Amino acid sequence: MPTPETSSTGEGALLVDLYELTMAQLYFNEGIHDTPAMFEHFFRSYPDYGNHQAGYCVQAGLEGLLDWMEQHRFDDGEIDYLRSLTDPAGRGLFTDAFLEWLGAMSFGDLELCSVPEGRVVHAGVTLSIVSGPLAVAQILETALLNKLSYSSLIATKASLVAESARGRPTLEFGVRRGPQDGAAAGSRAALIGGASSTSYVGAARRAGIEPSGTHGHSLVQAMMALGMGELGAFRAYARSFPDSCLLLVDTVDTLDSGLPNAITVFRELREQGHEPVGIRLDSGDLAHLAIRSAQQLDAGGFENTTIVLSSGLDELAIWQILTQIEQEAGKYGVDETHLIDRLAFGVGTKLLTSHGDPSLDSVYKLVAVDREGAWAPAVKISESPQKTVTPGHKQVVRLYDRRGLAAADVMGLETEDLEGCEQLTLRHPIRHDFHRTVLRSDIESVEPLLDTVWAGGRRVIERESIDVPRARREADLARLDPGVRRLMNPHVYHVSLTQALWDLKQETVESASDGRQD
Amino acid sequence: MPTPETSSTGEGALLVDLYELTMAQLYFNEGIHDTPAMFEHFFRSYPDYGNHQAGYCVQAGLEGLLDWMEQHRFDDGEIDYLRSLTDPAGRGLFTDAFLEWLGAMSFGDLELCSVPEGRVVHAGVTLSIVSGPLAVAQILETALLNKLSYSSLIATKASLVAESARGRPTLEFGVRRGPQDGAAAGSRAALIGGASSTSYVGAARRAGIEPSGTHGHSLVQAMMALGMGELGAFRAYARSFPDSCLLLVDTVDTLDSGLPNAITVFRELREQGHEPVGIRLDSGDLAHLAIRSAQQLDAGGFENTTIVLSSGLDELAIWQILTQIEQEAGKYGVDETHLIDRLAFGVGTKLLTSHGDPSLDSVYKLVAVDREGAWAPAVKISESPQKTVTPGHKQVVRLYDRRGLAAADVMGLETEDLEGCEQLTLRHPIRHDFHRTVLRSDIESVEPLLDTVWAGGRRVIERESIDVPRARREADLARLDPGVRRLMNPHVYHVSLTQALWDLKQETVESASDGRQD
Repeated sequence: MPTPETSSTGEGALLVDLYELTMAQLYFNEGIHDTPAMFEHFFRSYPDYGNHQAGYCVQAGLEGLLDWMEQHRFDDGEIDYLRSLTDPAGRGLFTDAFLEWLGAMSFGDLELCSVPEGRVVHAGVTLSIVSGPLAVAQILETALLNKLSYSSLIATKASLVAESARGRPTLEFGVRRGPQDGAAAGSRAALIGGASSTSYVGAARRAGIEPSGTHGHSLVQAMMALGMGELGAFRAYARSFPDSCLLLVDTVDTLDSGLPNAITVFRELREQGHEPVGIRLDSGDLAHLAIRSAQQLDAGGFENTTIVLSSGLDELAIWQILTQIEQEAGKYGVDETHLIDRLAFGVGTKLLTSHGDPSLDSVYKLVAVDREGAWAPAVKISESPQKTVTPGHKQVVRLYDRRGLAAADVMGLETEDLEGCEQLTLRHPIRHDFHRTVLRSDIESVEPLLDTVWAGGRRVIERESIDVPRARREADLARLDPGVRRLMNPHVYHVSLTQALWDLKQETVESASDGRQD
Repeated sequence: MPTPETSSTGEGALLVDLYELTMAQLYFNEGIHDTPAMFEHFFRSYPDYGNHQAGYCVQAGLEGLLDWMEQHRFDDGEIDYLRSLTDPAGRGLFTDAFLEWLGAMSFGDLELCSVPEGRVVHAGVTLSIVSGPLAVAQILETALLNKLSYSSLIATKASLVAESARGRPTLEFGVRRGPQDGAAAGSRAALIGGASSTSYVGAARRAGIEPSGTHGHSLVQAMMALGMGELGAFRAYARSFPDSCLLLVDTVDTLDSGLPNAITVFRELREQGHEPVGIRLDSGDLAHLAIRSAQQLDAGGFENTTIVLSSGLDELAIWQILTQIEQEAGKYGVDETHLIDRLAFGVGTKLLTSHGDPSLDSVYKLVAVDREGAWAPAVKISESPQKTVTPGHKQVVRLYDRRGLAAADVMGLETEDLEGCEQLTLRHPIRHDFHRTVLRSDIESVEPLLDTVWAGGRRVIERESIDVPRARREADLARLDPGVRRLMNPHVYHVSLTQALWDLKQETVESASDGRQD
């Protein structure tokens, strides 16, 4: 299957907030633009969809970020545009000296460590560490957040949808009402997060999979207007696609017209030696119509045809549909297990827009600056304790308990030996009164979460098939407590600091607070 | 200011749902792919943000659609990919004959009439009419909806934000947590909808405006870690940007550190002959901090510096802030009118994701097919009456009353004379019991809403400066009833069908229902 190598990258190097460039110019003017600095990326809280919440997220978007870093530096046209910008006094905002530096600058000077795509990740845990020249690492902020936030948000939503569908296929249908050029990244993220396929042909091509889709109402409408009726439309579809005949049956009336017509065509197909694929329901009470459709299909001898449900679906709607089928199918003589086993779900707009919570509150924060050859911790203090940044050069590990389940994500100083120590004191990131001691003997394994993905001017991980991050998600979910996976009031997964990192945070905050007004 | 001519267009001609192509192949196989057909685009309901609603939308995204139609046709690589797709029996999904047609097909065969960008538009009103060969018009569906839905959604949100800000500047800051490559279109739509500027440099360049932004917390953090403190950071900023010095004052402590340090630097700047621009507050109780900041700034002799507020803002938060300032400022000896006049608002994530309702339920529906040289109406029947499509070849007009206010949007048959008739019977699009008669003499003017924007293979409207759609929105808002503009329970704007179109709809639905199972 021919696949283009890299993804599209919109606005080039100008995928940047103006303030990254004004700060970079200041660093340049002050002679500190090359000072080694370290930034971290994380998200502060899980998506809260209003009436339910995610207890975990799924990392996605890294490949798009690496593509962008590989492809872009400021070109002459972009530099010329920046040269045209003015300050309120009418003078050029940027100096020639800075623009010359900017034109020559490269993201190749940075090192990036990240959690791989598809991994289950948690709020408040460092997911990427960027180190390198202060001004270059600063400029990367906008692109890094832009590439990782939306993709991780959608991969997370897709994972909830897939979990809710209990292993039945979920098809991503959202490009039409998705966020314009962002829909391609959204489809890819949905595939990483658990969607079985996508209707978006361009996104399927990039992912190296087959897109899905059959026909819409317009086909039936057109054939009816031309005098051939719904039955004529279905027969035409079967003629063109005898081995992939899946018919949308709700253009006129699902039970009284669409289904009988579909069954007629299915019989004709079978007589010609083709097995029909199924039907799609796109309106009305989907659970009830699925049961009544199964009745008719079973009676017609089509017990195993697929029933695709679509129209405003999300993880809650799917849960409701499955619950209703379990409760009602028996009343109509339909076996609920068999019916559920033949379902598939088309999930569109609500998936690609993360309905209920359309953004992930991810941030990119300075945590250390080189000062005379050593990392000096950098901090931001906030009245909201959860917004106070944890400073310092860190390592991030996941602890697995003796059952093989993930027990906690732990951030420590880069210099600590978390694997070899006999016991660990784990501190709550914010609350002073929450800490506990974990014995190494109670821990099955200690897994570092960050990989070096970009160094020495280029990506240092292979471009992956979409199957790889998909498999990572599945493996991580299998090791995640079911309480954390559930839709309603999920358990709060443990995220901790080591005692040493906790101590550094307290000292740095105290010293910064002392330094007010200096 | 150098501006690239066209916007980026992501996935090329493969910005298409698979089912558009399977339907097109069916039309091709049945020999009806060249049959003239007519599709319409509209949205069904206004965004509902949960605790408040939009009473109107702002049209945006048309330029991106025209760019896409101009730039794309299926290239060899795309055709090769489609050739590689298979059906469940392992045979090629698409035939060579169809793929040959697809490779030669052009959107140039279509005609597109649309409401111009920036116009205030309403739910259930036809906003675009696409006519041309059935298969080509079908294939356009995905791209048209993708390009118009998200942009119109964001222009609408930006309009509510701008209205809520009472004429004070609103700055779009959302690219970092916006929908990845979709953020560029979102920024542009925000500018059309009323945002004053954007922080996204690439989007500003395309719009031909100056981006906005100064510095973030990381600057202060870096300078503190390097031993120069917050005051040192502010002084460095003033050195680099003496005439555009706007300082973020909440990195350590807004009132006890940031503000006093900022005022020190402002004094130094003024002594050097530069006028400081202002401060930004990005956390805490923004209304209270704005009042207390104004107190300190006024006392320091900086009565006219701008105070930019940001952090989780949307139209409701801005409304709350302004209300709180009106109620509290006096208690601190601060003049509330003067304070409000120096405010500006940074609105980020919640703008570019249309927080509260992240999608517009726009649709693209077949309304007529040519049958023996005349338009045969096409219909889709639904149990939900609002989902039953109004068929036929239409015209769309806006009626203005004697006060010059928009009184109703009316859809009629293309052949009716709505301008010249003495009276009009207006029917509710759905409810049989709602109709009224309007005398022509009570109507000041009848304005056609649709322009031909694409015909004869190319766009037939000039590429516009962003100021043009911005001015359209302002003019339309001035002619919109304040009750329709308000945030809470807005009045429902009148949308009507003429009696002739209503009659056609009833006949077509009846005849389609009669034709069930045929």
